[in-house]
Amino acid sequence: MSVASISRYPVPDIDGLPHDIRERILAVQEKAGFVPNVFLVLAHRPDEFRAFFAYHDALLEKESGLTKAEMEMIVVATSNDNGCPYCVVAHGAVLRIRAKNPLVADQVAVNYRKADITPRQKAMLDFAMKVSNDSKSIADEDFVALRRHGFSDEDIWDIAGITAFFALSNRMANFTAMRPNDEFYVLGRGLG
Amino acid sequence: MSVASISRYPVPDIDGLPHDIRERILAVQEKAGFVPNVFLVLAHRPDEFRAFFAYHDALLEKESGLTKAEMEMIVVATSNDNGCPYCVVAHGAVLRIRAKNPLVADQVAVNYRKADITPRQKAMLDFAMKVSNDSKSIADEDFVALRRHGFSDEDIWDIAGITAFFALSNRMANFTAMRPNDEFYVLGRGLG
Amino acid sequence: MSVASISRYPVPDIDGLPHDIRERILAVQEKAGFVPNVFLVLAHRPDEFRAFFAYHDALLEKESGLTKAEMEMIVVATSNDNGCPYCVVAHGAVLRIRAKNPLVADQVAVNYRKADITPRQKAMLDFAMKVSNDSKSIADEDFVALRRHGFSDEDIWDIAGITAFFALSNRMANFTAMRPNDEFYVLGRGLG
Amino acid sequence: MSVASISRYPVPDIDGLPHDIRERILAVQEKAGFVPNVFLVLAHRPDEFRAFFAYHDALLEKESGLTKAEMEMIVVATSNDNGCPYCVVAHGAVLRIRAKNPLVADQVAVNYRKADITPRQKAMLDFAMKVSNDSKSIADEDFVALRRHGFSDEDIWDIAGITAFFALSNRMANFTAMRPNDEFYVLGRGLG
Amino acid sequence: MSVASISRYPVPDIDGLPHDIRERILAVQEKAGFVPNVFLVLAHRPDEFRAFFAYHDALLEKESGLTKAEMEMIVVATSNDNGCPYCVVAHGAVLRIRAKNPLVADQVAVNYRKADITPRQKAMLDFAMKVSNDSKSIADEDFVALRRHGFSDEDIWDIAGITAFFALSNRMANFTAMRPNDEFYVLGRGLG
Amino acid sequence: MSVASISRYPVPDIDGLPHDIRERILAVQEKAGFVPNVFLVLAHRPDEFRAFFAYHDALLEKESGLTKAEMEMIVVATSNDNGCPYCVVAHGAVLRIRAKNPLVADQVAVNYRKADITPRQKAMLDFAMKVSNDSKSIADEDFVALRRHGFSDEDIWDIAGITAFFALSNRMANFTAMRPNDEFYVLGRGLG
Repeated sequence: MSVASISRYPVPDIDGLPHDIRERILAVQEKAGFVPNVFLVLAHRPDEFRAFFAYHDALLEKESGLTKAEMEMIVVATSNDNGCPYCVVAHGAVLRIRAKNPLVADQVAVNYRKADITPRQKAMLDFAMKVSNDSKSIADEDFVALRRHGFSDEDIWDIAGITAFFALSNRMANFTAMRPNDEFYVLGRGLG
Repeated sequence: MSVASISRYPVPDIDGLPHDIRERILAVQEKAGFVPNVFLVLAHRPDEFRAFFAYHDALLEKESGLTKAEMEMIVVATSNDNGCPYCVVAHGAVLRIRAKNPLVADQVAVNYRKADITPRQKAMLDFAMKVSNDSKSIADEDFVALRRHGFSDEDIWDIAGITAFFALSNRMANFTAMRPNDEFYVLGRGLG
Repeated sequence: MSVASISRYPVPDIDGLPHDIRERILAVQEKAGFVPNVFLVLAHRPDEFRAFFAYHDALLEKESGLTKAEMEMIVVATSNDNGCPYCVVAHGAVLRIRAKNPLVADQVAVNYRKADITPRQKAMLDFAMKVSNDSKSIADEDFVALRRHGFSDEDIWDIAGITAFFALSNRMANFTAMRPNDEFYVLGRGLG
Repeated sequence: MSVASISRYPVPDIDGLPHDIRERILAVQEKAGFVPNVFLVLAHRPDEFRAFFAYHDALLEKESGLTKAEMEMIVVATSNDNGCPYCVVAHGAVLRIRAKNPLVADQVAVNYRKADITPRQKAMLDFAMKVSNDSKSIADEDFVALRRHGFSDEDIWDIAGITAFFALSNRMANFTAMRPNDEFYVLGRGLG
Repeated sequence: MSVASISRYPVPDIDGLPHDIRERILAVQEKAGFVPNVFLVLAHRPDEFRAFFAYHDALLEKESGLTKAEMEMIVVATSNDNGCPYCVVAHGAVLRIRAKNPLVADQVAVNYRKADITPRQKAMLDFAMKVSNDSKSIADEDFVALRRHGFSDEDIWDIAGITAFFALSNRMANFTAMRPNDEFYVLGRGLG
Repeated sequence: MSVASISRYPVPDIDGLPHDIRERILAVQEKAGFVPNVFLVLAHRPDEFRAFFAYHDALLEKESGLTKAEMEMIVVATSNDNGCPYCVVAHGAVLRIRAKNPLVADQVAVNYRKADITPRQKAMLDFAMKVSNDSKSIADEDFVALRRHGFSDEDIWDIAGITAFFALSNRMANFTAMRPNDEFYVLGRGLG
């Protein structure tokens, strides 16, 4: 729909990219039906691209006590708080799909405290917001509160790790003025 | 879709409402196809209901140098900043419809600085954010900057007035835990 | 005493105003002995004037579990926090009169936590400050705390409603650079 | 009028105080007609009392390019921002008297940007607020701006010094819950 | 090592200073082996110099339930929060020496919550940070919490007094661009 | 010196680590003379460890228009602002060594605006602080300001990228309560 720029920086041609990066991009294109702009924008720097997606996969493509939908809630809540359009729109789509719920992404973005999610999920997001905004004050009490909701220490690392990774990701997306693909806005809304 | 509560407070039965309020609600239902929850939640107090919608209409249903879409941008940008789900979701729908643009509401909600809107509209939203968050510092310079973008003094009152009205509205919606109707999430997304 | 401007916007001549607005202004003048500037400043826009005072009356001229003095405390505390001279000075006068206490308005304005008011009134103002500054975080616990002080749910709506209405009012007064009448500064100080 | 406590800490009997402190207190009582509570509250610690008033006098009882009224404006504006009732009420009285203006203290307390003061005085208070809230960011540009308003470098030290001294004073008054004398509320209001 | 300016203001020649000030400076030079810049910078105004050091001594050179190291922890934690290089670097050196611990100053400066100090000391610093940043909210509960850690009411005054004094000191040091002596950076690091 | 825990999480034995991670750790130990704790703490999760250091190297071990010392300034300034002891202490040491300046790390940590660095470096750190704290407001003007100081667009990406990476790193270090090695406190202080 739009022809607006997707980055402040030059966006490489896929064909000219290193082989591994091109393969990754073609694979995601095959699966999603389009290339999410984060792949094109970050490909401007191949080594950072590789590290970024390796980190992403290490956190989000693993076994966890968190569901895939819960992981995306963390991304959506902290990214809206950071004013990051790419992450809210793209991961909002993923959240709708993972949760099979067309409403939850907008709810979590604007105010997770009022969203249709469980008390356990709200506690998870309270902690994610603390990691995002006030990590210097993280204390033993935070772990106690999360364990009371059934989170293991490895789950808690997952919450903190995903939040920390999107602290990086939000800043890079805002810095590059990374534009969300138009496709993300409607995915998972249960339409059509 | 959902059966969740739409308010912390009792929601009156439409049939038992004073005649003028019932008429207004039936009229909006006829036009929209459903009753936006703000009508039902605020009907708990008829006098406040009447004043609220009279104020709303005085600001948003009048001739203005602002377009209807621009008025809704003000609502969406300041309401997301205030963490108000009802106002972001409901007025996001209206914004998409008014602007005939399925993307602009999410863009303006998360970060209007990066949205597909004009510099004049960004200046309008910069001022709305100042009215919303730091009205004590409003100064002559703010008027100069807005006039440079072609806003008349009456347009500037419209910007401030709408922002101020939704400062009230956001607080009441957050206080009552007002729930957006499910219908709003998809309206104007150009689907179906 | 002063001849300074009372508004950034044109102030209408009372004689040229619509009949209902002129009547209201003359009535308040008769009662108070002068016309509070808020009436003149907002009369620039008759429809907004009518809705503003209808809302004001719906909240402040009704039966409530809050005393008239308590209602004014909410206005004074939140308006000082918002840096709104008109509301602090004008409603400070009303508070002194309603409470028959020449000290309480300045105390509540600067720091209600140290004012000569009851613990119940401090709890009321703690909540009003949350509605004013952080409505997105209002939670069930806030209601529990207020009920423990004897506030009914309707009383709590009154607290929130008055706070929300003055969120609007403070922004309009700051935006228009609304000037408090000189008379307000001394009313209720037990002098003369 | 009130019999409330004037400090969280024991308040010494004037007769039991060291001679120099007793003399100072009796002198101020003779001049003002009452003993301002700051003298009694701080007399709990004679050495700190002596240093406090020596510092006060070194800054406020000296020749300066600032008028006495301007010095008090700095105190009133920063003390309201710090939520310090003693300093706003007591120095508000002094400001009214020094400026021979019954309105200016309340205006400067709530929002000096809208007060009936000169642009030079507003620039002075802008800088005082920066010293009070963000001293780490003080830069050469701040000095340039103040010099443009005619302040000498010694005047600028006076602004910063008074602000810094009341940063201390506000914290001690808030910490001790120092209560303003009832007399201060009406002094200088041009009544009776 | 460096020849940079130590103040925005003229630094007086020691020989031209009033006798009492010269004596104090020579005494500290004899003891420390160099003249800390705070003495030279503040000597620009002899009366303020005298009051400043009288206040300093009244608080820090007295018997207290706080150890000398604990007093310095208060200075270092609040001064880093205020972005005051002189106070962090100079008092960091004193803290290392007082505590006979080469690590504690940097730990307390960056994040006292994670420093190798006792829970009692962390409670002391929690309160100091509240005095520094939010004195308007100091409440009885703060005293209860400190007493539970064994602090007497006089100890609590010491915590608040030192914090308040360095609220002044940080602002004056930042305002004058007071430069820490190079010597302070290495003192007490257990080297050489 | 200390035997305190270096992480809230289990720290793996080096011998039991995957080969590539063990090799990396042994290499750094050979070069530095000790194993910086970040390697041991993050080795709890090998995949995240690999991605973390790949990202680190992609940003900090490359050719850049920034000097190595400038890169470390970014880390030290933003990490102190985030209250991250590990990053301030460890990278402070690296900064002292890279800059061959024993003072600059403490200066940049507490208040880079007052540090002995160039205007260009202060502009770099102003932007890094914006990326760290307010990335949603990054605008074309920021690029213009940096280019005026001679930074190329690739240099600007380096500034943003390093800041964003340490946004992640600070949060992980604070979350794990990562302890700086005692050795870092004295490295590069020009002693011994």
